Amino acid sequence: MIAVLKPGVTEAQKNNLIKWLKDQGVGVHVSEGQFQTIIGLIGDTSRIDPDLLTGLDIIENVTRISEPFKCANRRFHPLDTVVTVGAGENAVQIGGGHFAIIAGPCSVESEAQIIGVAQRVKASGAKLLRGGAFKPRTSPYDFQGLGLDGLRLLIKAREETGLPIVTEIMSDKYLDEFAEHVDLIQVGARNMQNFELLKELGSLHKPILLKRGLSSTIKEWLMSAEYIMSRGNENIILCERGIRSYDSYTRNVLDLAAVPLVKELSHLPIIVDPSHATGKSRLVPRMSLAAVAAGTDGLIIEVHNDPAHALCDGPQSLTPEQFDALARQIQTLQAAL
Amino acid sequence: MIAVLKPGVTEAQKNNLIKWLKDQGVGVHVSEGQFQTIIGLIGDTSRIDPDLLTGLDIIENVTRISEPFKCANRRFHPLDTVVTVGAGENAVQIGGGHFAIIAGPCSVESEAQIIGVAQRVKASGAKLLRGGAFKPRTSPYDFQGLGLDGLRLLIKAREETGLPIVTEIMSDKYLDEFAEHVDLIQVGARNMQNFELLKELGSLHKPILLKRGLSSTIKEWLMSAEYIMSRGNENIILCERGIRSYDSYTRNVLDLAAVPLVKELSHLPIIVDPSHATGKSRLVPRMSLAAVAAGTDGLIIEVHNDPAHALCDGPQSLTPEQFDALARQIQTLQAAL
Amino acid sequence: MIAVLKPGVTEAQKNNLIKWLKDQGVGVHVSEGQFQTIIGLIGDTSRIDPDLLTGLDIIENVTRISEPFKCANRRFHPLDTVVTVGAGENAVQIGGGHFAIIAGPCSVESEAQIIGVAQRVKASGAKLLRGGAFKPRTSPYDFQGLGLDGLRLLIKAREETGLPIVTEIMSDKYLDEFAEHVDLIQVGARNMQNFELLKELGSLHKPILLKRGLSSTIKEWLMSAEYIMSRGNENIILCERGIRSYDSYTRNVLDLAAVPLVKELSHLPIIVDPSHATGKSRLVPRMSLAAVAAGTDGLIIEVHNDPAHALCDGPQSLTPEQFDALARQIQTLQAAL
Amino acid sequence: MIAVLKPGVTEAQKNNLIKWLKDQGVGVHVSEGQFQTIIGLIGDTSRIDPDLLTGLDIIENVTRISEPFKCANRRFHPLDTVVTVGAGENAVQIGGGHFAIIAGPCSVESEAQIIGVAQRVKASGAKLLRGGAFKPRTSPYDFQGLGLDGLRLLIKAREETGLPIVTEIMSDKYLDEFAEHVDLIQVGARNMQNFELLKELGSLHKPILLKRGLSSTIKEWLMSAEYIMSRGNENIILCERGIRSYDSYTRNVLDLAAVPLVKELSHLPIIVDPSHATGKSRLVPRMSLAAVAAGTDGLIIEVHNDPAHALCDGPQSLTPEQFDALARQIQTLQAAL
Repeated sequence: MIAVLKPGVTEAQKNNLIKWLKDQGVGVHVSEGQFQTIIGLIGDTSRIDPDLLTGLDIIENVTRISEPFKCANRRFHPLDTVVTVGAGENAVQIGGGHFAIIAGPCSVESEAQIIGVAQRVKASGAKLLRGGAFKPRTSPYDFQGLGLDGLRLLIKAREETGLPIVTEIMSDKYLDEFAEHVDLIQVGARNMQNFELLKELGSLHKPILLKRGLSSTIKEWLMSAEYIMSRGNENIILCERGIRSYDSYTRNVLDLAAVPLVKELSHLPIIVDPSHATGKSRLVPRMSLAAVAAGTDGLIIEVHNDPAHALCDGPQSLTPEQFDALARQIQTLQAAL
Repeated sequence: MIAVLKPGVTEAQKNNLIKWLKDQGVGVHVSEGQFQTIIGLIGDTSRIDPDLLTGLDIIENVTRISEPFKCANRRFHPLDTVVTVGAGENAVQIGGGHFAIIAGPCSVESEAQIIGVAQRVKASGAKLLRGGAFKPRTSPYDFQGLGLDGLRLLIKAREETGLPIVTEIMSDKYLDEFAEHVDLIQVGARNMQNFELLKELGSLHKPILLKRGLSSTIKEWLMSAEYIMSRGNENIILCERGIRSYDSYTRNVLDLAAVPLVKELSHLPIIVDPSHATGKSRLVPRMSLAAVAAGTDGLIIEVHNDPAHALCDGPQSLTPEQFDALARQIQTLQAAL
Repeated sequence: MIAVLKPGVTEAQKNNLIKWLKDQGVGVHVSEGQFQTIIGLIGDTSRIDPDLLTGLDIIENVTRISEPFKCANRRFHPLDTVVTVGAGENAVQIGGGHFAIIAGPCSVESEAQIIGVAQRVKASGAKLLRGGAFKPRTSPYDFQGLGLDGLRLLIKAREETGLPIVTEIMSDKYLDEFAEHVDLIQVGARNMQNFELLKELGSLHKPILLKRGLSSTIKEWLMSAEYIMSRGNENIILCERGIRSYDSYTRNVLDLAAVPLVKELSHLPIIVDPSHATGKSRLVPRMSLAAVAAGTDGLIIEVHNDPAHALCDGPQSLTPEQFDALARQIQTLQAAL
Repeated sequence: MIAVLKPGVTEAQKNNLIKWLKDQGVGVHVSEGQFQTIIGLIGDTSRIDPDLLTGLDIIENVTRISEPFKCANRRFHPLDTVVTVGAGENAVQIGGGHFAIIAGPCSVESEAQIIGVAQRVKASGAKLLRGGAFKPRTSPYDFQGLGLDGLRLLIKAREETGLPIVTEIMSDKYLDEFAEHVDLIQVGARNMQNFELLKELGSLHKPILLKRGLSSTIKEWLMSAEYIMSRGNENIILCERGIRSYDSYTRNVLDLAAVPLVKELSHLPIIVDPSHATGKSRLVPRMSLAAVAAGTDGLIIEVHNDPAHALCDGPQSLTPEQFDALARQIQTLQAAL
């Protein structure tokens, strides 16, 4: 971190600042120029809040040189993290060259539906089953999911197909059930900065699927991963799912450049959700292929046996037939790349 | 709600749709034009998900005529809601012509600090005391607040000054403590769509200060109020605190037009937070006056006895002297308006 | 277009409105419901301004059913437009299954530079040469391009290599020179709504490369194409180049979903500019491949023989060697798709 | 400007860089730390492109300390600029404590209309008359303004009322007519970065009203002012008119904090356009008062004698009666402030 002092700062003010900085445990290197005094902070500056420094009335300007995240930072952990989801013969690896597709309906609706979809997507090559049991809905009057009953149906679908299951946690109320039964615990976009929930998840050993917030920056997203990792749980998979746009034509803008950018900054795997990003099933195949070309470690795709009558997000779901065709195209594309 | 059918839809398809809509409990009015068939939905359409309807392959287009929120809707509740915060002689009313200023430090740091600031802002005319005990910070390495100790210090400051206290809840972990001790429970921007928390707050009788999300639309914000109100707690005060911008020059863009817009759509009181919206203390006085001119029901302003050494958000805090001058200007402005 | 009348509108008011609408040349279909009167407008509603209609105090709500663009609309022109750039044996087709790469430096700097780069990119498979002669720079103190001298150097590079040339027009001052010498005239993002320039370009017969505005919606972009087409020039190639974002980490967000979306709405070809979209050369290869997977009709890529010393936009330029490797990857990808 | 070198840079590379920088005419101060070498650039760094520097492969990071604009910079010109519009007894001053309201219709429609509105707004206290002769419309099929006939009608209205006239220029085609007849030449949001037009306006002596671009940053806006000023025309009035938002509820977000922010950075006057910013006439009075409280040097307000039948932007126009009431409220507010 570099701090530039304002012109006219006295020796006493400068020395006070330097003393305070050293008390915080960082090294200090002072460079006196003809016009400006520049103070370089050396060591673990992640504990210095640049906003706080900026607020001091003797400071002109503060610049961070290194990123504020440590556990998630590729600089300190150059090798790709590979996250293992599930156990035994059905365990799936994601990251570091291991690619996987997660598929399933937006919401779990019935035993027949979830098992039927699970069998279909498995046959097409999906490696994990998704399905919402607790649903974050903008309106309190919209379908909120089957709750624990939905979770039980997911477990049945896993028993039938062997696919590890992925589902969203919305509060710590059912943390024990999630920790015991869910293979990959999803944190939704609206909870990306629910810091209390992130801290709780940091004490589990289960892999976490951390979706990007509705309009979060890449750094904020990695800082949310850092919340979980700094408590001890390093099994994080990031998920780009589109960011808020001024154009009402699509629900969100899918930010595919986030894939190579995140891979530069961090060693964590990153997957893409083309279904929520576009909100339109007819855009999902093209955006899935684009995500693969951009280097994603996986995809999470909504598939429903009857999208027109789905209880939520029908318009963005593929049919099993459409998913099967897409899965083949993805294989062809990966072979070429 | 109005649905336009695609050209070429059969009689049977149309009748199926009409039957399904009537089963959902809404009235249906069909208008057959030369080129298009238009279906008008009458009654309580808040329970019909327009995205679901749009997903049916016989539908060209769906338009909402009425808003999806009911409890918060001025159409069904024309008179301004007045929220009473605190009890007895220190109770404060907000809304319906009652204006109040909430002031205090970003974080509670010590007994001397919080009581000192409370006495100063009370002397200048503030009616409520704010102070963070649990702090949502982007980085897990930044100061997270004093927690329950901070809450105890706020209670002491209330005992000393009589000012009702306002502080942020970050999860339901301490719901009982908040319900018992806090006069106005704040939901922060990052938790505006933490629906599980909103549901819990709906079962309390305490007033809620609901901040607008980082990039939430006005409708999403009112739907979050609806989550709380639909569970029985109608004591909501909305708070505009700036929305995310592409310009790094200010932390956020303060959307003051939200004040008259929310008042059109809803009967709930709305206040403005110029401190978080701008992130720069020198912009706070001007933006406070602008908010008053825009018709706000109150202000929430950060005041710290030593902003340069505040443990968080120092740069956006006023000194007690600056706050005192601002409070006088606000009084003059209100007298003129 | 559908207009919903407010409750309580009188017969006389309604009849006045219907008469006025018919005077504008549109057909009118009235549907009287129990609670609402709905007026459907039939025929060429592109000449009715919905904002104007919304302003009438008897109107509750107006919805467009059909898009406001006609010439650019796939509904009225179902087959893909194929644009031919250049003439004779070096003519290049773009759109309708014809894919082409445009490559070259941000700015023309010298004869040796532009001819050297042209030969290199031609050898790697580029079909057109780009190079800025007139440069839109945020600062008046930054390099503004070589102007007409730059144009002359581009012409020389075309003579040497046969590659048709693409360069940006910034005003109508040199319209004659551009019409005579430039094969594909580029309208930059900052001029996408310079309507007077668009009108002038509508009277030419030369193909136009219309970049998306910094934060324009897809509809605004197609309306700008409509400005050119409605004057008679239908040779338009659209170019997605990233849109403004709140995240300072990348210069822009590349909106790849715009590719399939534009293809649904319009018959015009669309290409992608990964260099300006990301601003970082190391992201260009991945985003180029992603654009191809998303279905783009072409790419426009910055290539410079000495990026570190380029007079502008060096950081986003590939070296000829990097471009050559990318061009091979693109061919492999296209073969697979 | 401060540049941080990457670790491992050789002495030769460093010396090459320093030589190149000195050749560009800036002073260089080198600070060798234990871990990092920092190079401070001193003098006129506005001519150094930070993106170019960032592109060099020996550079880790570049930070601007001073702003890239000079003519518009308050640091070099501490006193407020006062712009005089019009001549003789009707001349109006804006800036430096001089406040003025510009009012009139969106478009000039007829002699009776423009003279009628001019007389009404003058009677209410407006000091300048606005009216569009050339209209930038998203659709080529929407009303484009009366052109030169509209300009002639504005001149007549000035003869009748004495009010100086304000109207938008859309290209340099009629530059001579504007230079001769228009008192304050408006550059619209869509042309804020039409740099060729800005350069032409820099050679005039007429005051320019420079609207902020649809999603321009404050720095980009001041750089556009710099384009005009660096050519010799320092009579610039800036105009905040709302920026693009993700919320379809309002047309734009009025960024009132831009008023005090611009005043910090620049000596130029700044006014506010609440009509275009909100797009809804019923929000205009509140937002006008808020702008005055925020410290604006003036307002530009749409007033139409028959808003419901205005040829464009009717919904955002006040009636003369509404404007008269607002003008009185503004006077009261200013007296209080």
